[in-house]
Amino acid sequence: MRKLRMGMIGGGPGAFIGAVHRAAAAMDGMIELVCGSFSSQPEKSKKMGEELKLSPERIYGSYEEMIHKEAALPADVRMDFVSIVTPNHVHFGPAKTTLEAGFDVVMDKPMTFDLFEAKELKAIVEKTGRYLCLTHTYSGYPMIKEAREQVKKGALGKIRKVFVTYPQGWLSDFLETSDNKQASWRTDPSRSGIAGAMGDIGTHAFNLAEYVSGLQVKSLCAHINIVVKGRKLDDDGAVFLQFNNGATGLLVASQVLAGEENTLTIKVYGEKGGMEWSHADANSLLLKWPDQPMQVLRAGTGYLGDFAKHNTRTPAGHPEGFLEAFANHYRNFALCVGAKKDGISPKEEWLDFPNAYDGVRGMAFIENVIASGKSEQKWTQFTV
Amino acid sequence: MRKLRMGMIGGGPGAFIGAVHRAAAAMDGMIELVCGSFSSQPEKSKKMGEELKLSPERIYGSYEEMIHKEAALPADVRMDFVSIVTPNHVHFGPAKTTLEAGFDVVMDKPMTFDLFEAKELKAIVEKTGRYLCLTHTYSGYPMIKEAREQVKKGALGKIRKVFVTYPQGWLSDFLETSDNKQASWRTDPSRSGIAGAMGDIGTHAFNLAEYVSGLQVKSLCAHINIVVKGRKLDDDGAVFLQFNNGATGLLVASQVLAGEENTLTIKVYGEKGGMEWSHADANSLLLKWPDQPMQVLRAGTGYLGDFAKHNTRTPAGHPEGFLEAFANHYRNFALCVGAKKDGISPKEEWLDFPNAYDGVRGMAFIENVIASGKSEQKWTQFTV
Amino acid sequence: MRKLRMGMIGGGPGAFIGAVHRAAAAMDGMIELVCGSFSSQPEKSKKMGEELKLSPERIYGSYEEMIHKEAALPADVRMDFVSIVTPNHVHFGPAKTTLEAGFDVVMDKPMTFDLFEAKELKAIVEKTGRYLCLTHTYSGYPMIKEAREQVKKGALGKIRKVFVTYPQGWLSDFLETSDNKQASWRTDPSRSGIAGAMGDIGTHAFNLAEYVSGLQVKSLCAHINIVVKGRKLDDDGAVFLQFNNGATGLLVASQVLAGEENTLTIKVYGEKGGMEWSHADANSLLLKWPDQPMQVLRAGTGYLGDFAKHNTRTPAGHPEGFLEAFANHYRNFALCVGAKKDGISPKEEWLDFPNAYDGVRGMAFIENVIASGKSEQKWTQFTV
Amino acid sequence: MRKLRMGMIGGGPGAFIGAVHRAAAAMDGMIELVCGSFSSQPEKSKKMGEELKLSPERIYGSYEEMIHKEAALPADVRMDFVSIVTPNHVHFGPAKTTLEAGFDVVMDKPMTFDLFEAKELKAIVEKTGRYLCLTHTYSGYPMIKEAREQVKKGALGKIRKVFVTYPQGWLSDFLETSDNKQASWRTDPSRSGIAGAMGDIGTHAFNLAEYVSGLQVKSLCAHINIVVKGRKLDDDGAVFLQFNNGATGLLVASQVLAGEENTLTIKVYGEKGGMEWSHADANSLLLKWPDQPMQVLRAGTGYLGDFAKHNTRTPAGHPEGFLEAFANHYRNFALCVGAKKDGISPKEEWLDFPNAYDGVRGMAFIENVIASGKSEQKWTQFTV
Repeated sequence: MRKLRMGMIGGGPGAFIGAVHRAAAAMDGMIELVCGSFSSQPEKSKKMGEELKLSPERIYGSYEEMIHKEAALPADVRMDFVSIVTPNHVHFGPAKTTLEAGFDVVMDKPMTFDLFEAKELKAIVEKTGRYLCLTHTYSGYPMIKEAREQVKKGALGKIRKVFVTYPQGWLSDFLETSDNKQASWRTDPSRSGIAGAMGDIGTHAFNLAEYVSGLQVKSLCAHINIVVKGRKLDDDGAVFLQFNNGATGLLVASQVLAGEENTLTIKVYGEKGGMEWSHADANSLLLKWPDQPMQVLRAGTGYLGDFAKHNTRTPAGHPEGFLEAFANHYRNFALCVGAKKDGISPKEEWLDFPNAYDGVRGMAFIENVIASGKSEQKWTQFTV
Repeated sequence: MRKLRMGMIGGGPGAFIGAVHRAAAAMDGMIELVCGSFSSQPEKSKKMGEELKLSPERIYGSYEEMIHKEAALPADVRMDFVSIVTPNHVHFGPAKTTLEAGFDVVMDKPMTFDLFEAKELKAIVEKTGRYLCLTHTYSGYPMIKEAREQVKKGALGKIRKVFVTYPQGWLSDFLETSDNKQASWRTDPSRSGIAGAMGDIGTHAFNLAEYVSGLQVKSLCAHINIVVKGRKLDDDGAVFLQFNNGATGLLVASQVLAGEENTLTIKVYGEKGGMEWSHADANSLLLKWPDQPMQVLRAGTGYLGDFAKHNTRTPAGHPEGFLEAFANHYRNFALCVGAKKDGISPKEEWLDFPNAYDGVRGMAFIENVIASGKSEQKWTQFTV
Repeated sequence: MRKLRMGMIGGGPGAFIGAVHRAAAAMDGMIELVCGSFSSQPEKSKKMGEELKLSPERIYGSYEEMIHKEAALPADVRMDFVSIVTPNHVHFGPAKTTLEAGFDVVMDKPMTFDLFEAKELKAIVEKTGRYLCLTHTYSGYPMIKEAREQVKKGALGKIRKVFVTYPQGWLSDFLETSDNKQASWRTDPSRSGIAGAMGDIGTHAFNLAEYVSGLQVKSLCAHINIVVKGRKLDDDGAVFLQFNNGATGLLVASQVLAGEENTLTIKVYGEKGGMEWSHADANSLLLKWPDQPMQVLRAGTGYLGDFAKHNTRTPAGHPEGFLEAFANHYRNFALCVGAKKDGISPKEEWLDFPNAYDGVRGMAFIENVIASGKSEQKWTQFTV
Repeated sequence: MRKLRMGMIGGGPGAFIGAVHRAAAAMDGMIELVCGSFSSQPEKSKKMGEELKLSPERIYGSYEEMIHKEAALPADVRMDFVSIVTPNHVHFGPAKTTLEAGFDVVMDKPMTFDLFEAKELKAIVEKTGRYLCLTHTYSGYPMIKEAREQVKKGALGKIRKVFVTYPQGWLSDFLETSDNKQASWRTDPSRSGIAGAMGDIGTHAFNLAEYVSGLQVKSLCAHINIVVKGRKLDDDGAVFLQFNNGATGLLVASQVLAGEENTLTIKVYGEKGGMEWSHADANSLLLKWPDQPMQVLRAGTGYLGDFAKHNTRTPAGHPEGFLEAFANHYRNFALCVGAKKDGISPKEEWLDFPNAYDGVRGMAFIENVIASGKSEQKWTQFTV
């Protein structure tokens, strides 16, 4: 497999997640950034492209231009796939255009602006036969892979409870009128969609809960709040969950927990034992047993399963972090895209990145959770 | 103040909490166990009393006998107060009889079998002018005292969120038919009341939330489960909370989280910062700030407030634990009872133990939370 | 076994460790304080005794008076044993007098003022056949008992390395001229002996190393410092250790590590695995394996060995602390003394408290470590 | 500044550290691998180069060939610098040749095979005016940068104690005859030099101690062991340290602590407070105070100093790890090399990577520590 050529949409000056995507893509030497449309303002796009040392002719003023011109380049020059890192309301358009032009796609979450777009995008993915990788970072962590494998092989017995908590504090104050670019669009319904915290981080938590447990939420009861006065979208919430196997659970997502950073945590309990992973100690996975000592499984060790091992670069005690988790999605996506080009079958471990199915689930979560938040009835069926 | 003489009701062979009460009462050299009615079976009571080296004539066959005979003893011999450590359905009777006979009372939680009894008992306390100490252990921890003081002095600003979680795993299996005495009565509606986990540990969590925040729950939405097949009372649940100042919160109490021990945790967030205490690290209190490093306050240090200092015996780095927290309630209760005997005014720090007011709140929590659990409406007003 | 009657020497107003001994003795309802000689100043002794609610006639003005008069009381009234909690230079005299008067002894560490006294005291113990319990607190922790058992049963394989570290910070400043009573005598050669930190806390660390590993130090190399200007005794040091089985190790004891509390830590490594215990998380014991997940053993669980179980009062997740560890020594001592009175054989678990043998080892450590600190040769043979 | 072109010497199939260097170099999009001589066996070099998708003509059979041919390429094509990731005995030759051919150098530690080579290499660096970056990973961590700044600005007061501990367990067994490539050369005196653990990880610990404290070791006393039978080089040791300001300290480095991973830890204490950093929680720095709560400083926050901020990519709560720390050295080196090319002055933060001076100190540490280990005298002067 040769090095893949990446184009980027979004990620201009001041964007947080664009730089993360670029570092993650670069880390394993499998992907090279060759072109980009970094901003809807051509001047800004040009500035960013230059900073990234791209050839001037491959810095584009709009994503449509990029896709059009790249598609016209010779096969051994043109980009192989596109990374979309724009705000939510500019997800669907670029993704659709990219896929239909014959390119694979990596894109940031949540997948689209609303559920309708999500289902349509999933249909386009299926029709075009392209890969779509949705960067739900946390399922890229090796110990989350291990957590999923432990559940799958039945180590905990039948799952009874799933707790997932995503606390942040950065929106404790009213930053909407500050020059904080992140705060500005993430709290704006016209760019974020109908949800604030539930869309921004609740979807991560939801994805993690379903990914690790292997279960599907079938109904929920949400308590959704706008804590900071003047804010237009939810900045705090908690949700009771019911899963398709009879298990129940809880999801908490808040961006107004002053002093909290980003400590996403998941705990899963079955008939035989419990499991805990926290982003604060991302290279460990705790297994808890009623009648035996708790075990601390560690990334980089020999006793882990295939998925954890495949998604680790360094030996135990050499911590990998957020960028590496992100890079795991890029690497797996690249392995699949490369395999397709090379005409070989992807391994199961390579296919293990969030995709359009997860994207639709996430958008459905947003719609259901906001609906439930407004309802006076306790339970809302989870519909897609 | 002289040493106080304690009588005990309950706490016979095989009881867990009776031994805890005795150790807690003994620790500070202020209280002496002089008599007891340790079981409803006179033989068992006798056996226990002998094991505890009591004078044979002060080991009683029933609590009525004990109260009656002790009341008849000379003032410098008879017991000063009674500690009630029976199952819930045998709380009200002994407490009423004791109070009306002119003795003060320490008793285990929840205060009574139902809310009706609780309100009546509170009225008796008020009428008799006796002290009633309800052993909600966790508010006895020095760093919980400090947490309350930090909130009270406004360190966190206006409180927005309160999370309290009480995970246990010991009822993950169906132990009702085993010889586990604890499991047997705590899962039996005729001895425990209408609630299982919510009564046994949910009330602790509820008490802690109100004690630390200084707020009152005004409505709630509960998701209550019986997870283990065949069980008669709830063994798992989660509750959304709304407080009287507009803050919201979450309470989790479960006894089926396999592998969990007893790690009660509380997190409180205000406009300015956050706070976290966990029973797993009971001698620390974390203060989290948006723009400053997190601070770790420690028991036994000089910078703590008066309430924390008053409830600590050893210097920093010499951990105190569960028995010491329990002993703090006994010590404060004893200081108040002693002060009354000596005709002096109790200090504010001495009066700081859970009382009949907290007992009524706790029983109201049980009734409200179980009602909400059965309701299809999202919110239930918290009524007392 | 009836309740044992305790007399106390030392522990007057302002003493730290006296109150600890009293709480530890009281906790399990097996011991009752009946008399005391709390200070070399009769006025202070009287004041303390009254505060402790003792009968006035059993508050004594000197330890000689106490021992003499108590010995003359009827057998069913007089004290059973004596607890000695004076500064080091007043250890030997009271202990000798007490033992020779036919009473058992609990005493604080280090055992005596110098090695010569220690050996003599050990001889007296042997001659009189009395019990002597030396309160090296840390070997009273249940998870330290478990650590010792794990080594003994070979879980770690042949021991290769022992690290023990005892950091404190309370002597970072020159407190000798302040009114800090602790600082005053512990830094005074005429009351402490030839060692400061090495005597006060180094002996705890040394005792723990030998207790847990089951090994004996046979040579050492010490780096001993007086960090704070004007201080007369060492306040900081580190020691290389060689053990009788070929293992090596390291002991660190310092009282000038500003900001440290009292986090004694021990790590032991064998051919098969490692083990770690820290006073900061005293109810856990970590077992580390090369090819398996780390295990976290917890106090109060069912899978622990007999010694850990015997020294625990509460179930897992209900933390016991410093006073409970201390109380374990008192309880075991009391069980042995009681067994002697009852004419029964003590169990192996009861005999498991530090004794005169450990006291001699500790005093030899002080002499050897100070000698090595002054030597320009690297290694000093450990001689007793 | 344009993207820099990197050549690599070493890092062929099975090498651990080569892949780390490549990921670190790639992460920030500032460096591109363009050529390499990956093995002394041309076949292996070719294989590796192909795997890395290099142009066939720039995969070389020997480092001499690479340097010679690259130097002859046009300025806008040829490599800018070389990364040397060979075993120790193949450090000096490639580095000398590279520098003298006019290229800058990144190289793995320890700098050379012996002190003599180190001093010569330092002289060559000075003569040629080239940059040499020595990858002592741990000083690349942002919270280590912060630790150094805290010391430098006097937050802890005058430094009194420095403890640095580097525990590993991977050499607990005799792996020399296994197919473990790492174990094979690192325990072989003809490839590693006179030291095993002290050279491999002791030099990291030594570098960290001097880097963070800003002090220099002036004498030491070492206890050096070969624990595993049959091993030719030390696998375990501890060292007392004396620093040039009067502070003392301790260095521990061992590769036979079964069950340990790679938890390098440093603790520094001054007159006013203490500081602790552990590789197990690399994104935190603890500041401990005698009379104030401990503070936990976190990577990615706004309150950190310039050096920490410059070496961080993600906001607080998004952990960076080993590869990012490594990448910080590469990035700073690249910024300096780029600045030189662009004719601008490097910032102080850019120059902050380990260099030939540190390399000489490290090699002197090896010689002094091994000499002290063999000496019967306690103290050995640290000579360079």
